[in-house]
Amino acid sequence: MDDAAARMLRRLLDERPVAALGTLHRGEPAVSMVPFVLPRGDTLLVVHVSALAPHTRDMREHPRVGLLVMAEPGDGVTPQALPRVALQADATTLPRDGADHAAARAAYLERFPDAAVTFELGDFSLVALRPVSARLVAGFGRAEALVGDALATWLRG
Amino acid sequence: MDDAAARMLRRLLDERPVAALGTLHRGEPAVSMVPFVLPRGDTLLVVHVSALAPHTRDMREHPRVGLLVMAEPGDGVTPQALPRVALQADATTLPRDGADHAAARAAYLERFPDAAVTFELGDFSLVALRPVSARLVAGFGRAEALVGDALATWLRG
Repeated sequence: MDDAAARMLRRLLDERPVAALGTLHRGEPAVSMVPFVLPRGDTLLVVHVSALAPHTRDMREHPRVGLLVMAEPGDGVTPQALPRVALQADATTLPRDGADHAAARAAYLERFPDAAVTFELGDFSLVALRPVSARLVAGFGRAEALVGDALATWLRG
Repeated sequence: MDDAAARMLRRLLDERPVAALGTLHRGEPAVSMVPFVLPRGDTLLVVHVSALAPHTRDMREHPRVGLLVMAEPGDGVTPQALPRVALQADATTLPRDGADHAAARAAYLERFPDAAVTFELGDFSLVALRPVSARLVAGFGRAEALVGDALATWLRG
C-alpha cells in the first residue's frame, strides 16, 4: 500500500464520528455503534460508554474488542471496495481520578460537544481502546496489516 | 417505538449497502465489512464472501454472528443518536445447486451489479444470515428489541 492510501485511511479515524464495536457478549460476537475520538498524536481511541449498555459490561468481562471504521458509501465507489480500517484493541476503563482522564475527556468533548451532558451522569465512563493490530483496506486487493511500531506510527498520523 | 420509527429503521436495510459483521475469530470478536441484501419479502440477509477472507472461515466454525447497519452520520444528527439496527444472526452457506441459490444470487446482483465478476470466481460463496434477534435504535432512549414473529414481520417490511 502506498503512503497516500495509508494517509487516506488514517484520515478516516479523524473524520468518521462512529465505529462499529465488536464485543464478546455471552460468548457470541455482538456489534454496536460507538462514537470515538483518537486524540491528536495519541495511539489509542477513546469512547464514552454507559454502564447500562451491554457492550460496556462485555468489555469489562472480555477486554479484547474489534473495531471497524468505514468510509461513507457513495456513488463513485463500489461497496465491495469501500475504504475501511479494522482494528483489534484492548479496552481499559479510565478512572475518573486518573492522570489520563482529563485529557481524554477534553479530546472527546472537542469532537462531541453535545455529549457534555453525559459526563454529568454517574453511569458513563471513558474507556481507552488500545489497538494491537490493524487491517487497512484501500480497495479491491489493496490491504495491509499493521502491528507494533508501524501501527503506532500510523496511528499518530 | 412508534410505527414510523420502526419503518425508518427497516428502510436502512434496503438503503444502506454495507453492514459491519461481527464474527468470532479464534475466540475473539472481529468486525469486518460486508455488502448485503435483504431480498424483498424475505427474512434473511444474503452476503457473498470469499473463502480467502477470515470472516468466511469464522462463520463456518461459529455460525452465530452480529450485524450492525447504521444510518449515515450527518450534520443534523448527534452521532450518539444515530439510527441503527443491530442483529444477531445465524450463518448458513447456500450450496450452488441448492433451491435458494438462484434467487439469492439474483437479489444480490440486482443490488450489486458490479459484483457479477465475483460469481465467476470459485472461492466465493453466498451465505444466508438468518436474524434471531434485533435491536432497533431510533435515537436517544428510543430502542426496541424484536424476536420471533415480530422480528419476521418487521424484516418482511
